[in-house]
This record gives sequence, C-alpha cells and structure tokens, in this order.
Amino acid sequence: MPGNQFGKLFSITTFGESHGYGIGVVIDGCPAGLPISEAFIQAELNRRRPAQSALVTQRKEPDKIEILSGIYEGISTGAPIALFIKNNDQRSKDYDHLKHSFRPSHADFTYHQKYKHRDYRGGGRSSARETAARVAAGAVAKLLLQQHGITATAWVSQVGHLALQTPYSQLPLQNIEATPVRCPDLALAAQMEALIKQVRKEGDTIGGTVSAVITGVPAGLGEPVFDKLHARLGMAMLSINAAKGFEYGSGFAGAAMLGSQHNDIFYQTPQGSIATYTNNSGGIQGGISNGMDIFFRVAFKPVATILKPQPSVDVQGNAVVVEGKGRHDPCVLPRAVPIVEAMAALVIADFLLLNKSAQLG
Amino acid sequence: MPGNQFGKLFSITTFGESHGYGIGVVIDGCPAGLPISEAFIQAELNRRRPAQSALVTQRKEPDKIEILSGIYEGISTGAPIALFIKNNDQRSKDYDHLKHSFRPSHADFTYHQKYKHRDYRGGGRSSARETAARVAAGAVAKLLLQQHGITATAWVSQVGHLALQTPYSQLPLQNIEATPVRCPDLALAAQMEALIKQVRKEGDTIGGTVSAVITGVPAGLGEPVFDKLHARLGMAMLSINAAKGFEYGSGFAGAAMLGSQHNDIFYQTPQGSIATYTNNSGGIQGGISNGMDIFFRVAFKPVATILKPQPSVDVQGNAVVVEGKGRHDPCVLPRAVPIVEAMAALVIADFLLLNKSAQLG
Amino acid sequence: MPGNQFGKLFSITTFGESHGYGIGVVIDGCPAGLPISEAFIQAELNRRRPAQSALVTQRKEPDKIEILSGIYEGISTGAPIALFIKNNDQRSKDYDHLKHSFRPSHADFTYHQKYKHRDYRGGGRSSARETAARVAAGAVAKLLLQQHGITATAWVSQVGHLALQTPYSQLPLQNIEATPVRCPDLALAAQMEALIKQVRKEGDTIGGTVSAVITGVPAGLGEPVFDKLHARLGMAMLSINAAKGFEYGSGFAGAAMLGSQHNDIFYQTPQGSIATYTNNSGGIQGGISNGMDIFFRVAFKPVATILKPQPSVDVQGNAVVVEGKGRHDPCVLPRAVPIVEAMAALVIADFLLLNKSAQLG
Amino acid sequence: MPGNQFGKLFSITTFGESHGYGIGVVIDGCPAGLPISEAFIQAELNRRRPAQSALVTQRKEPDKIEILSGIYEGISTGAPIALFIKNNDQRSKDYDHLKHSFRPSHADFTYHQKYKHRDYRGGGRSSARETAARVAAGAVAKLLLQQHGITATAWVSQVGHLALQTPYSQLPLQNIEATPVRCPDLALAAQMEALIKQVRKEGDTIGGTVSAVITGVPAGLGEPVFDKLHARLGMAMLSINAAKGFEYGSGFAGAAMLGSQHNDIFYQTPQGSIATYTNNSGGIQGGISNGMDIFFRVAFKPVATILKPQPSVDVQGNAVVVEGKGRHDPCVLPRAVPIVEAMAALVIADFLLLNKSAQLG
Repeated sequence: MPGNQFGKLFSITTFGESHGYGIGVVIDGCPAGLPISEAFIQAELNRRRPAQSALVTQRKEPDKIEILSGIYEGISTGAPIALFIKNNDQRSKDYDHLKHSFRPSHADFTYHQKYKHRDYRGGGRSSARETAARVAAGAVAKLLLQQHGITATAWVSQVGHLALQTPYSQLPLQNIEATPVRCPDLALAAQMEALIKQVRKEGDTIGGTVSAVITGVPAGLGEPVFDKLHARLGMAMLSINAAKGFEYGSGFAGAAMLGSQHNDIFYQTPQGSIATYTNNSGGIQGGISNGMDIFFRVAFKPVATILKPQPSVDVQGNAVVVEGKGRHDPCVLPRAVPIVEAMAALVIADFLLLNKSAQLG
Repeated sequence: MPGNQFGKLFSITTFGESHGYGIGVVIDGCPAGLPISEAFIQAELNRRRPAQSALVTQRKEPDKIEILSGIYEGISTGAPIALFIKNNDQRSKDYDHLKHSFRPSHADFTYHQKYKHRDYRGGGRSSARETAARVAAGAVAKLLLQQHGITATAWVSQVGHLALQTPYSQLPLQNIEATPVRCPDLALAAQMEALIKQVRKEGDTIGGTVSAVITGVPAGLGEPVFDKLHARLGMAMLSINAAKGFEYGSGFAGAAMLGSQHNDIFYQTPQGSIATYTNNSGGIQGGISNGMDIFFRVAFKPVATILKPQPSVDVQGNAVVVEGKGRHDPCVLPRAVPIVEAMAALVIADFLLLNKSAQLG
Repeated sequence: MPGNQFGKLFSITTFGESHGYGIGVVIDGCPAGLPISEAFIQAELNRRRPAQSALVTQRKEPDKIEILSGIYEGISTGAPIALFIKNNDQRSKDYDHLKHSFRPSHADFTYHQKYKHRDYRGGGRSSARETAARVAAGAVAKLLLQQHGITATAWVSQVGHLALQTPYSQLPLQNIEATPVRCPDLALAAQMEALIKQVRKEGDTIGGTVSAVITGVPAGLGEPVFDKLHARLGMAMLSINAAKGFEYGSGFAGAAMLGSQHNDIFYQTPQGSIATYTNNSGGIQGGISNGMDIFFRVAFKPVATILKPQPSVDVQGNAVVVEGKGRHDPCVLPRAVPIVEAMAALVIADFLLLNKSAQLG
Repeated sequence: MPGNQFGKLFSITTFGESHGYGIGVVIDGCPAGLPISEAFIQAELNRRRPAQSALVTQRKEPDKIEILSGIYEGISTGAPIALFIKNNDQRSKDYDHLKHSFRPSHADFTYHQKYKHRDYRGGGRSSARETAARVAAGAVAKLLLQQHGITATAWVSQVGHLALQTPYSQLPLQNIEATPVRCPDLALAAQMEALIKQVRKEGDTIGGTVSAVITGVPAGLGEPVFDKLHARLGMAMLSINAAKGFEYGSGFAGAAMLGSQHNDIFYQTPQGSIATYTNNSGGIQGGISNGMDIFFRVAFKPVATILKPQPSVDVQGNAVVVEGKGRHDPCVLPRAVPIVEAMAALVIADFLLLNKSAQLG
C-alpha cells in the first residue's frame, strides 16, 4: 500500500537517502528454500555502481551489500529479507548552497511543496541512489526466476540521436557488458561513448533509451484487468528516476499499423506448443503472457544536473543562479541497464507467485 | 490487492463480462458529501457507447447506468458506490464458432492458458466492454476533481499515419466533441474519418494515439518512490485494452535531448507562485506534480478483430481459419478518449486523497 | 486496501445499505474451475434470512441471490464473481422519526461524526443487513474449502446466562440446525429459546456467544508475523456487527494456566502424521495452523434496538426520546451462526491461496 | 499486503530473527514534519528490554536503537523511517539440541511445515524478539498521537489466578511503572510478583492478561465495514506472540447482558459535546470511535518454554525429550505492556490518517 512498496506477493519496500546512513530494502514474500548468493547480489550492484567506468559519476561508493535477515545457511527461510548498503562518500558540503534553492527539473521544488521539511543533500530520498536497493532486491528476484528458466536482459538502445535500429533478435546480446556504454552493437557503442564524453566535456548531459527482453516466461502471467503484465511492467519502468516513456511489442509504431499487419498469427510448433510467427504483441495478449519473448523500451531524459549556471528560484521565490558541482553522470543510460533488469525481474517474480492461484488445485 | 482493483484510497473494483448479465464497478473510498449527478455519469457513458456514430461498432447497447448503493439523496455517504450497466444486445451466437479457436492477437489463448475454463463469448472478461465500468467510475472521480478545479481532457492525436503535430496548448480543444473522431483539428479530423471509413470498407482496422492534458493539479501529488504520479498514470493507461505505449512530457523525444535543452527553468509568477517557462517535465518532477499542466500520450494498436479470414489454431493445436463476424470497431481511438479521461481522473482523485497525509496536521 | 474489502488473494468487497436498492459483493481472486452451486449459496442465505423462525426479526426479505458475473456454465472463470441481493421490504417510514436522532449504542452518532451526510434508514450501511453479502461470499469460499476437505461449523454456545460448558468434541453438532436457536444441546436450546421469547415479550434484547470449529485445515496456513491465522480470524469475527470479543483455543482461560498445563505435547500418529494430545493451541501455533482442529468463540452484545423508550440526543444535542419500532431481532445469536461460518471460510480460503507461495516450486 | 506489514497509511514492515544480525522495521507513511526523539524510542525499548528486572529473561540485550533513514535534523521528512536494533547476545549454541526437534506449543513444527527450511535458533522469525521492532515503530506512532492529544496506556491486569477487578477509571495508572510487574494496584502487584517468582522457581511459566485504555481519540476513527476500529485493534493485539483472546468494552461479559442494561445513553455535556453515561461500547460504536475512552483486554498464554523435560517428536516423527535451557521469561506479561501500547498506537495512527479522506474537502 505505501508508496515505497512495490509488488503484491514478492513485495519490496525500499528506504534510505542519498546522503544519509545508507540505502536498504526489505523483501517480503520470497519463498523459502531459495539459495541466495551474496556474491551474485554484489555483482549486480557492481553493474550499477558509481565510478565503474569513465562514463559515469566518479562518486566513490563501494556499494557493499549487507544481508540483515531472512537467509539462514545461504537459503531463504520465508522470513523478510532485509538488505542494506552503507553510504560512504557523503560530501554533503557540496549541497550546502542548494539548501534553499530549487534545481531545475529536479525534485527539490516538488518535495518541498509536498513535505515542506526535506533532506536536500543530493536530492535525499529523490536521488537515484535509491535504485541501488532495487538492484539488490532484483538480484534476489533474478535468482528466483533462474529456477524457472527465465532471464531478463537489458541494454542501451539509444543515446541522444544515436539509436539502434536492429531488432533485438538479431543483436549480439553477449556484447552488452563488453563496453562501458552497454550497447551490444560495438560500433554504435563506440559512437555513443564518444558522444557522452563530448557532452560531459561541455558540462552538459544527454538522454536515451534502454531496451530489454525477458525470455522463458510461461504463458499465463499477468492479472486482469488492471494488473496487466505490461501495465505493471510499465509502472515499474516509469518509477525509475528520469524515465519519460514506455512501450512494449510494436509500441508507438503499432499505432500506425493496420490490424491485418499487426495481428500475430498462431501456429503449432513441432514440439506441440503454440507460438506466433510475428511478435507485435511483445509476448503479452490481453495483459497476460503468451509464452513468446517479452520485449519493451524505456525512454530516459537527460540528467537534470548540468555543470553550467542556470537561473532558478529559492524557497521564497527569489531569483537565484544554481550550478551543479561535484561528480555527476553525464548520461544515466549505462547505469540504468541493471535497474531496468531488476525491475523487470521483480515484476515477473511477483506474477509467478500470483499465478499460482489462477486455477483450482 | 486483487487484479480487478485499482487505486488505494479512491479505489475501484470492476466486474462483468461482454456477454454476461452486465458490467459493474464498486467505488470504495469516495469521500462523503459529494453531489453525484446520475445524468453526468450517463453522459460520460454515452461518449463511450457503441453505435454513437458511423465510425464505431453498431452493437446496440443503451449502456444505462444504475446506481446500486452509496448515494443518498443525490450525495455520497462514504459507503461504497456500486454502479451497474446491464448488457442488452448479447448476440452470443456470433461467437459459437470461436468456442474452441484462438483469435489472433486476442486474449483467447492467454486466458485459456491461465484459467482453462473461460467465457469465450465476445472475449468475456477480456472484452473492452469492461471499460464502461471505468468510465462510470471515472465520472464520479471527475465530480470529485471538479470540486478542486481539476479537469482531464483527452483527444485523438493520431490515426494510422495521420498524426497531429501541434502542441496541445495551441489546439482548439473545444472542438474535440464536434467530430465523431474526437480530434480537435477539424481538417485532420476529416482525414482521419475518411481513413477509418476506408479501412472499415476493406474489413481491416487501424491504430492510433490519444493525447491528454490534466489542468489545475496542485503541486504535491504523487507518492515516492514507486507510486510516482506518472508511473501510476502510465499503469492506468496501459491497463486499457489495446494500449501499447505511454509517454508524458517530452516523452521519447526527450531521450534525444541535452540537459541544457530539457531542463525547465523556474520563475516566480506575478501572482507569487512558482512556475516553469517550458514544460518538458509534463507537470511532474521526481514523480510529484509541480503545478504545471500534466500531459501525456497513449498508443493503441489496431483492433485485433478484422473481417477477413486469418489462419490460427484451436485448443488442440489444430490449424483452423477464423474470421470476424458481426459488429466491431474499425478503430478504437474515438471511443478510447473518454476511457483515457476516466483513468486519468481516477489516478488524480486517488493521489488527492493520499496527499492529505503527506504533512503533519 | 479500502475498508469494505477483506482478504488478500481470495478477496471480497461488499456494498449496499439496509434500505437502499440491495446488498452485494464482488469476490476477486476465486480460482477458475470451481463449480458454483447457486442453490448452495441460496441455502446459506436462507440460514441468515429474516423471518426464518419465531425467534428472529419478521422483516419479509426473500434474500434471493443473483449472480451478476464470473461464472460461466456453472463454473468459476477466474473473473470477479459479483453477487447481488435485492432489498424488497423497505419500510423506510419506520425510520423517519430517527432522521435527526441518535439511537443509543447504534452507529448513528459515529457515522454522523465521520461522514456528516448519511443514510439513516435502518442504519444504512451500518446495518447488519450487510452480512448477507458476507454469507453469500462465504458460501463460495465454503465450496472452495470443500475441495480441500475443510469444513467450518458454528453454533450458539451462550444466550444471556445460559452457557454451554461441554467441549465441542463431545457435542452432537448434527443437532445445530434442528432448533431455531442453533444450539446443539437440545435441552439447553429449549431453555435458550424460552429465554429469548421472554426477553422479546419484555421489549428487550439479549447477548450471547457463538462457538465454531474448523476441521481439515492442513498444517502451514497463516502468514507471519501480523497476519497470524488467529489474528485474521479474530479481525474477521470482530468485524461482524455486535461482536465484543474473540478467543481461540484455551482463550481467556489459558491466561490462568501454567506452561506445564498448557503446552500441547506432540506425538506421531499411527498414520505417521504429527498430532498433539491436547489442543490448547486451538490448532494454531506461532500464528500457523498445525493440522489440529481450529476452534474459537465470539461474544456478541445484546441488540441495541429495544422496544422501550430511551433518552438520547439529536444532532443539535437536544434531549429526545427514541423508541424502537417495527421488526427487530431480540437476539442476534441464531442468525450470527452462518455469518461466523462465512467469515471463517473466507479467512481460510485466503490463507490457502497465500500459502501456495510459501515454498519454492 | 505481505504478512510482515501492518497498517495502510501509517504502515510498518518488520524484519529480523532472534539470533540473526538484528531486528528492524521500516515505517512508511509517517507524515513529514514530526519531531522524532531518539531518546523516546530508546526509552520505550527499555520498557520491553530483557533483563530489566528479576522477573524477566536475563538475556543481555542493550536493544540500542539505530535510525537508518527518514529523519533529517530530528524531524520526519515523509520518507520511510527505518529503525534497526542489533542482536548482541546470541547464544546460538543453546539451541543446537533443538535443530531437529519440535518444542511443544512453539512455532517450530508449524514453521517447519510451512517453510521446510527454517532458522531454528531461538525460534528465528517466530521469536517474540520481533516485537522490539513493533515497540520502536510504536514509539514513533505515539509521537504522532501526542500531537493530537491521544495517549495509549496498558498494564498487567491478571497473572494466573490473580486478577484485577477494579474498573480502569478507578485505578492509579500512574503506578504502572512503579513495580516490575506493571500492575497499578500495588498490593496485587506484590502478589503477582511473588507468584511469578514461585512459578520460575518451579521451572514453570504462567499466563495472564493485559488491559489498556486509549484516551483523547476523536469521534470518527475506524473504517466500515471490515476495518472496524475494534477489529483492527483485535487483529493487532492477537498478532502479538502468545495472545489468545481479545475483548473491548463490555467484552465477553456483555454477552450475558440485556439490551436495556448494555445500551450507553447519550447526553450533551456542559461543554456542548455529546457523551455517554456508561461506556459498555468501549468507545466504539459501529466500528467507529465515539469520543469516549477506548478500552480493551488481551489474554496471553503461559510462555511455552519451561525448564522441565517434556516429551515431543523430531522432524522424522521420532519420540524425543526436549528441555528448555538458558534464559527465558517465566511470564510474558510485564514485557507485553509496552508491546500492547505500541500496537494500539499504530492502529490509531493509521486510522487518524485514513480518516482525513472521510469527508469532502
């Protein structure tokens, strides 16, 4: 029910602020008997970690995972799994000048309007640092999905005007982690990298898109009528900081198509299962998975913090000038990849559990 | 918690099937003291009703609203408000030939996989007829929003390749209801109308987009971190039948922008409030409304039922041919407009109530 | 989430008022494939119905069940099951004199304070007539429990000072429906009946207790730590109109015992399962069922409406005299029996579904 | 939604095990702007702490509160408040002999049945050590209630056969903390203390009851029809370890009364508010507070761990003998007092927030 909770049966509650004591998450509803590898959670966190490459913020955070509860002898017990990540590199001083000012396109103004009293340091609760908790919880969800042969894989499909046009099925997805930008097309990745460095040099930032595919999802996941699989996926993705749009399957391009073009024709496979020749449905029909790959795309705006002076107002409405200091991402996309995967895994894990009650017996 | 429920404090549960006894909704959480106009609910339903124009399905449904509970002497009592719409025109025979076959890109196959036993007539629960309940509940939400000076207005912004390029602020929104296609640009509306008629003549269908703007929303609505205002809006829109994508503010176009272009600069208005010069944020920053207009766009695929024979399979996996019969929409867009408005109103009503607990006192 | 909803996976939302159009319920989460007997639902409603005997209110309500959705060819489809019961005998005039007055120990005053605008006729939403919806939904839950060999049986164990002392295991529970008072001890039942008639003659009312046993519950139901099985059972029972207390197993008597007396010693049955010699635990340990019978007791106060003049105040605080008119129950207990069973069945059905996610696989 | 969460708007999620790393809680929904005194939270924890007197377990736990998030400069920000209490004195060895055996009337067997893999040390998640998290969260709720002039006060009203008969309004409640047994009647407290010491000497344990009163609650709290104020209070109390029963107002005694005796007559006070002469309603009518004191009583069974050998079975069903070792409470009652208060405060805080949406405006 509360706003910091996501999921109905495989449910997470995150807490913590950018410059507070740390960031954490409680997973309530993970089935008992699941082997939990601390090393795997750490590896996922490392993919999101600051300072992992020259393309991202150089804030020094080891993002070391601590397991506070719910796991005994390496295996889940059905009790809540609490995970915590201490904040180490809290240069709160960097934010002193922003205590009373609203940074453009940040959450400073809206949090002030909503809560009056706020932790302004690094954006406090509104900081994308909160997504570390999502990645940690998503790693546990991924371990559950592994047991069902399900994988969630994301990559950067656009930076600025540089957009990947190739369908995902023809992409060498094994290359994703080969470049700091996490685009599987290595030639395009190099261009993206150059563009991000150029933008950073100018003290500016740039947006882009992340695409993802979920494979191995059995038919039947998703809950009519409001909790359609793509509706929950969309909410999950849109809840990530800086997200501006979501589409799945044919997406916005499908709006220009005819029914006779768009419909996915069913056939029986040699193995006796039912599949479709095309997949404009993106693996989801009527809000429920049909057994085909689920794929989608998420748009992210450019990071709001730029290293240039910008006019703004303070809490009294007076005109001020604000300027980003310190260590910021010129482009959120590379680090968004593990976050998108984590949220996808959390959605699917939840629907797997919910689907156990669909039929009698 | 269940999949047929939406909203936390202003919460709705819908029920009913396309060819069953009727469609209904229970609204739990509407504050006491709200004058409820049955005529207004009926008027909203009339905007979604079949056979309202030559562009839509000619199924004969009066969609007459019945108020079953929760209202006394025309005013809400705080008790659940149950609304019901009888089904009248149930030509179930039209579906006999589909009892054991899966129509392409419908929910037949996925419902069969999920539930085994299903009401196949007209899609049963998966039919867009369910959205009548949403429009009825949305009308009540709109009445609540009226008390706060908030309006939600949607229109058709694309049909097939015909797309409206004008920013909403320059559109004559008062024209929306002037044409059956519900596009405020009357010249483009005429083209859209012609295109839909052409598509229908060919027994085909076509997709499009709906755009919407919500005005009068005070700053502070939305609940960090998962229930961001745009995340809930996105889920709401994506839960509408045939929806394929959602974007707000700068949306997917924002992905190609620089931070220095995208940031919305704050200023103090002569009246002393704080506003932004541009509105790439779409009225939402950090998941919370900032007092500017909220605007967004939803993509819809072409209707899956086409009046042409299509290959498919039956429940045993045998190859069959299916062909749409009877009365179907060639284009869902005109009737989607009141549904988009209804879902938007439901989201904002819920956040209005949730926001009452944000601050002490 | 809303207050008119109960249950997480097998979830119900009730609606309707005493003197409105009718009473209804939407069940969301009933698994597909369950045969639903309308006759069984009706039979359960008949056990709660007014005018079923000389001991209860003579209000003439057939309480005819109507199934509005969710069932196709007699079997649940996984879609929401909406059930409706029209109100027929609405003598609203009986309440005109109470429009502005607060009846002692009714909800008139508190509803007025909470909602200001209220439907005062017959108590409106606060009327025990709402429990008809619970009984109808409980009947569906009972059908689900039948599939698992689980039964819920309740009876009247006390009326006024007349209390049944025999442990339930020694009671002839088959006698429950043999007397209008629903006490399985026929001699005591006769005394209770005489007492109720005497009380009615005096224009007064009287309280009592209902006891219940749930058999066949497998070990493992209940969700730590807040949704303990007995905590949810307790909430369910206390949510019934006029309930004042709840105890399970040894209950309040257990408070006076020593641990060495109270502990239930485990042993292995000849069939290889694990059981306990005694059952002070009431079938629940640590909030989770242990496979033994679950039993509990609920206290109900005397009905607040008495046919005697009582001093009170009106909405302005002026002193008034109120006097019950019309047709009221002198004792709620006999009709509470099917309500207690219904709520018990709803709780267990929900935990059955929730428990499917306890372990991996 | 998950079992380790309680509350809808003022919502808590607890985590942690008896012999794990620690115990914690995330409070989601505390309004921004509330001054939070760490010293007050610590003081409340001290009232529940082991080894606080000779009457309770001598386990050495400082139960030092750590605030992980949600508070900035001593004031809540609206972000989740995470609180953590490290476990220090983990003599896990004391439980090695119980790894495969089920202690009578503990949760060992039921957790094993539900989850298979479990942390058996000290009961793991089922340990009453979890209630430390409730007391910490309850302290924050109490601070919120203070702002509204609401107090929740509990005391021991029965130990074994020694029961307090005096109505709460005639008790010197200021004496509660004066004795280790927390009974305001000092003479009876001395007897209780002697009884507990006697029972401990025999290696046995003993049950009892806690009573409580909540003052200053405005009329209007509680949500019809399932979330009645007393139904949520009852669930909250029954979710405390070892609870066996709950009653409010006249409670079980009310079952023996006539309506003419039980009804609480309204009158207008000289100050113009409406009150009742008697309070059999326990401050709640129709599930909603009426402005009078709310009072209730909770039954607790004797602690299951006794220092005597008891027969039992192991996971294979073999007969074994188990015997409590180490440091256990002979009577849970004195330490239950702050837990009852905490749960009461959490319930009222939640209803205070929920009630903000009852009426328009």
